Amino acid sequence: MSRTPVSLLAAGRAALAAVRSSTPLVQCITNSVAVNTTANALLALGAAPAMVDLPEEAGGFAAAASGLLVNLGTPGAEHRAAMRAAVAGATAAGTPWVLDPVAVGSLPVRTELAAVLSDAGPDVVRGNASEVLAVAGAGAGGRGVDATDDAEAAADVAAELAVRTGAVVAVSGPVDVITDGRDTVRVRNGHVHLTRMTGGGCALGAVIAAFAATGPDRLASTVAAVLTYTVAAELAAERAAGPGSFAPAFLDALSVVDGAVLDARASLA
Amino acid sequence: MSRTPVSLLAAGRAALAAVRSSTPLVQCITNSVAVNTTANALLALGAAPAMVDLPEEAGGFAAAASGLLVNLGTPGAEHRAAMRAAVAGATAAGTPWVLDPVAVGSLPVRTELAAVLSDAGPDVVRGNASEVLAVAGAGAGGRGVDATDDAEAAADVAAELAVRTGAVVAVSGPVDVITDGRDTVRVRNGHVHLTRMTGGGCALGAVIAAFAATGPDRLASTVAAVLTYTVAAELAAERAAGPGSFAPAFLDALSVVDGAVLDARASLA
Amino acid sequence: MSRTPVSLLAAGRAALAAVRSSTPLVQCITNSVAVNTTANALLALGAAPAMVDLPEEAGGFAAAASGLLVNLGTPGAEHRAAMRAAVAGATAAGTPWVLDPVAVGSLPVRTELAAVLSDAGPDVVRGNASEVLAVAGAGAGGRGVDATDDAEAAADVAAELAVRTGAVVAVSGPVDVITDGRDTVRVRNGHVHLTRMTGGGCALGAVIAAFAATGPDRLASTVAAVLTYTVAAELAAERAAGPGSFAPAFLDALSVVDGAVLDARASLA
Repeated sequence: MSRTPVSLLAAGRAALAAVRSSTPLVQCITNSVAVNTTANALLALGAAPAMVDLPEEAGGFAAAASGLLVNLGTPGAEHRAAMRAAVAGATAAGTPWVLDPVAVGSLPVRTELAAVLSDAGPDVVRGNASEVLAVAGAGAGGRGVDATDDAEAAADVAAELAVRTGAVVAVSGPVDVITDGRDTVRVRNGHVHLTRMTGGGCALGAVIAAFAATGPDRLASTVAAVLTYTVAAELAAERAAGPGSFAPAFLDALSVVDGAVLDARASLA
Repeated sequence: MSRTPVSLLAAGRAALAAVRSSTPLVQCITNSVAVNTTANALLALGAAPAMVDLPEEAGGFAAAASGLLVNLGTPGAEHRAAMRAAVAGATAAGTPWVLDPVAVGSLPVRTELAAVLSDAGPDVVRGNASEVLAVAGAGAGGRGVDATDDAEAAADVAAELAVRTGAVVAVSGPVDVITDGRDTVRVRNGHVHLTRMTGGGCALGAVIAAFAATGPDRLASTVAAVLTYTVAAELAAERAAGPGSFAPAFLDALSVVDGAVLDARASLA
Repeated sequence: MSRTPVSLLAAGRAALAAVRSSTPLVQCITNSVAVNTTANALLALGAAPAMVDLPEEAGGFAAAASGLLVNLGTPGAEHRAAMRAAVAGATAAGTPWVLDPVAVGSLPVRTELAAVLSDAGPDVVRGNASEVLAVAGAGAGGRGVDATDDAEAAADVAAELAVRTGAVVAVSGPVDVITDGRDTVRVRNGHVHLTRMTGGGCALGAVIAAFAATGPDRLASTVAAVLTYTVAAELAAERAAGPGSFAPAFLDALSVVDGAVLDARASLA
């Protein structure tokens, strides 16, 4: 690939430092399950969460925010209107935004919404393999849905989706796959406890938005976000007795992970 | 009773093992307070939560889910429509479903809804004594509402409610009472910290739905769920410094409690 | 000031004991981010939370509750209707209620709502400096919005707001400022971790409502609430490894803080 792991790691360290020094304001329109964990993850990281999710307020706020997360986990009617307003506001103002197409595929409301939103120019799409395959299938030329937890199996489709939408696509799994359609990066960090903490994937979407606020290099900032997040999970797992105690330990770890820890832990390819 | 504690404990061990091996998909339409704890409890147990709570999506999903929880804690208009759709979908497909009539009694919207839903054939009704008495009073032949925390005081009404609705009725309290109208079982396990962790009762409803997915014996599966849950609370209390540290310890305990622990700890009568 | 720190501390000890012995029932109409933390804080303190937030139920419940919190964090349409109903019910019945004007200022829906609600006679208004300045500016004779984290800078405006609305105004910050327009009290307790636990400020609003239920002296009960809350934060910080482990430790501390701890720790002026 044209981007080397060494250069991405260096960019990742810089992006993490930039998040810490700039406290990006991340607007989140997200689901009821993950909203608390998402806000706490942003705070622990050093960013500032703002759950501005009213249709009448979301667009104006998105224009002023540093980044925006649109997560389709529990997209009630009012949230759907807020998402459309926020995406319009973010687009007009150049605010980077992340689409997390939770459970898209067979569920009709969110699948239709994901098709509209993925065509609206997200900066990053983050999901598991099934969700990324479903989003790709919901648009023109997609391959349809295929339930799988293996991010690698979705790598080619993710790259095509990146080319079609202009978004960086991040596929979460035991190995995370991140692609802009030209370069595809794999992050081998993480821990299984992250999958047993509800909102673990959803909060990553918000962290990706925080990192996207640090500069225009979307591939590098997304790799940096995934790396920071999954390395923090490794640190937390060393202190956790199970999936319950993992959650507070993970927030503790997010608040202290730094460039030196990334250097020591990163497994990029 | 015709079901002995020994036979119920044996069935409970088998049900817990079945939950772990089958990863039941439990749809939850639940309140905003407990939704995060509920998802985490299911994940810790080894089940898979899915908070599919849109009116347009809930019915179809319920038909495919392993189990369904309908919890009336904060039943906004959109949630109420989703609950009705989900119950219809579950009923048509034979998906077992649990009704948790939170705060039913004097509050009009949820009391009317509980009356409709309890007549719609839930597999299990779970509540505290006041709620079970209120649900019984809301239907034909009930005794009206009587605020009390003593599950035993509601045992007879619970048995009548079970006969009338065909549901197993689980009354939570310092001693849990579980009845199908013929046999009534008491579970003496648990810890007071469970009452100081918000969502502690609500998440149990979801766990009951996960166990209901393991087979048609609703009394045994509900006893198994309550037993697993309350024994995990005992394990957690041994590690907790208070109600705050109890919560992560409880999730840790839910993830490791097994048949041997149930054998050693169960207090059934 | 006419109220001395010594007399306020004595009143605070009594109010804390009264919360513990009376288990006030606190209705909360609050945002999706903080709702779980808020319920847990009330439970840990020894109060009883009730998130009754339907327009059809909120007014009647407020008339019977011990206290009410109206928090504008994520005020969807249904919540806004419930807030108006609850305030009407509380006002008619004399139930003390707390207004938390989250993010009021530039966001139009909540700013308009805060103007209406602050004119409806809240017993306490709690916010950070920017929010208090915004609420003051939204009414007659206000000074407009000025973003700042320094509660002291808002002290004069807070006192004016207290005089105009009849509410005690509590401004959260590194030093908390609490005023009834005649006396202004400063609480120097607390810990920075409280600002990195999402819902940390929102849950304080509910705790203030619980203390308001203990008697008619709103200045003393609000000082007592802030003191109890911020002293618990100090206890928790001593046990926490970071912002994640702070959260459960804070609930543990809230459950044990008592008059003797307040005496030893209070920094009032």
